[in-house]
Amino acid sequence: MRELLVVKSGGPAAFVEWQAAFAAVAPGLELALWGDPALDPARITHALVWDPEPGALARLPALEVIFGAGAGVDAIIADAELPRHIPLVRMGVEGAAQRMGEYVAWAALGLLRDQRRLAIAQAASRWDYFEPENTAPERVVGIMGLGVMGTRAATMLQGLGFGVVGWSRTEKFVPGVRSFVGDAELAAFLAESDILVVLLPATEATRGLIAAPLLACAKPGAGLILAGRGTQAVIPDILAALDAGQLSGAVIDVFDPEPLAADSPVWAHPKVTVTPHCASLPSRRERAAYVAEVMARHRRGEALPNLYDPLRGY
Amino acid sequence: MRELLVVKSGGPAAFVEWQAAFAAVAPGLELALWGDPALDPARITHALVWDPEPGALARLPALEVIFGAGAGVDAIIADAELPRHIPLVRMGVEGAAQRMGEYVAWAALGLLRDQRRLAIAQAASRWDYFEPENTAPERVVGIMGLGVMGTRAATMLQGLGFGVVGWSRTEKFVPGVRSFVGDAELAAFLAESDILVVLLPATEATRGLIAAPLLACAKPGAGLILAGRGTQAVIPDILAALDAGQLSGAVIDVFDPEPLAADSPVWAHPKVTVTPHCASLPSRRERAAYVAEVMARHRRGEALPNLYDPLRGY
Repeated sequence: MRELLVVKSGGPAAFVEWQAAFAAVAPGLELALWGDPALDPARITHALVWDPEPGALARLPALEVIFGAGAGVDAIIADAELPRHIPLVRMGVEGAAQRMGEYVAWAALGLLRDQRRLAIAQAASRWDYFEPENTAPERVVGIMGLGVMGTRAATMLQGLGFGVVGWSRTEKFVPGVRSFVGDAELAAFLAESDILVVLLPATEATRGLIAAPLLACAKPGAGLILAGRGTQAVIPDILAALDAGQLSGAVIDVFDPEPLAADSPVWAHPKVTVTPHCASLPSRRERAAYVAEVMARHRRGEALPNLYDPLRGY
Repeated sequence: MRELLVVKSGGPAAFVEWQAAFAAVAPGLELALWGDPALDPARITHALVWDPEPGALARLPALEVIFGAGAGVDAIIADAELPRHIPLVRMGVEGAAQRMGEYVAWAALGLLRDQRRLAIAQAASRWDYFEPENTAPERVVGIMGLGVMGTRAATMLQGLGFGVVGWSRTEKFVPGVRSFVGDAELAAFLAESDILVVLLPATEATRGLIAAPLLACAKPGAGLILAGRGTQAVIPDILAALDAGQLSGAVIDVFDPEPLAADSPVWAHPKVTVTPHCASLPSRRERAAYVAEVMARHRRGEALPNLYDPLRGY
């Protein structure tokens, strides 16, 4: 049966860009826009999706593989009717870990020199010189989630001079990184971390974790970088901790829901840098190349990489 | 004779902070504010200055050592009556190179992901997702000036994955950094550099160097980071190169004069991040500790470190 890849990621405007991206890396592949009324659902063999409507994937009888359009597949597995027998491949391009490391390094350095204050001064055409605080070797960054991305970020932060500690569900071994494990060691981990970086996957265990009880255990004046999932954070608690000085600044890339509403108080908060969920997402061209490569390997009978694991939850 | 250190750096408001800084590191040292009418000039043995009025240092008969308040001493040697027989010590604290490396790393990563566009979107409460461009391993940073600061920046950039090349007056050897030398190799250096970082000292040879002729030889779409001295750059040429797309973005920390005027077009330019000459300056506490340490060593008869060299011009 001829392969047909349906795309639901970014809407009709982005579909044109997906077509250009796939034309460059897999010129023979047939593409269709999700929900195109002229499309026969029985012809769809592959789906590249970010947030499919619940039940929609179950109505594709010839579907062989589902690709998540990002590293996290939480918006896909939220579908109660998701056909669980069909393999779900998470976006696993090499560029994603590098990009996440770059984002975390940029955000951590930006917290050190208060890039938000610098941006506010520039917007007001105001020369606002202020004394610098600490340098990287004087600060310890605590990374929550030591997967591929957290590990890469740890290495890049160490190269800048930061001390690094990590916290994860199971013990991880990263050179030079003291590792804390599970709920029992969370408080000890927080007590070490001058800047907290959240790179956890979206699971039931991490939902709402970054909230008042955890923030109360952080070091007074800690910085916060959120680049996991918006559902992990309780934004009003974070703003309250910033206003009370318990947190000194935050860089936030993920929200729930997205896009962040135009009337959210987060945008104008003088201690928060907002970015539009761009921390680690590779370009469409990179993601198209990954999808095309996995499809080619699968066609040759090779195992699918980077599969969603329902036991881990990501 | 009892030591008396006079301070001219930041004015009367900053003097209070200098007093606190010296009280912490050298509690016995007597301090005076520059220009205090109650002060007998014949009692001044040491001066810590950024931009003394021309001729003023020459009128201090007991002056033994001049300390520059920053890494560059160009505002001091501009004084035609500067007493050349009195040693001039440049600020040489370890933290300055680390801070400069952090600034350059932050600025280079910020250019990669267009932090200026992100800041403009946040100021407008607008969720402006855009496709990422290159990652660090796809970009080469060209550093102009491979002294202590440029070398530290090079190492930190390499740790992030960037390729690094360098350009300097005399050949320098930094691991992994291809080094270009002098005017003859400037064009070849520019042809390699996706992001140009200017960390040169302020000398006659570097005055006005970052201008249209040099920018025309840069790679189309190059990024620019200016953290040397404002006199090295011709701002209208840089804005023209940005508007023409010859440069894709700039991060500028140094201006001439400073502070940058409130009505300068630089502030609002959509491709320029402005910072208030904060790239590498250590805290007053760090600088006070350095001055106190050098004074103690000098008292013991040891040689003064980090002296201004009139032949090099810095």
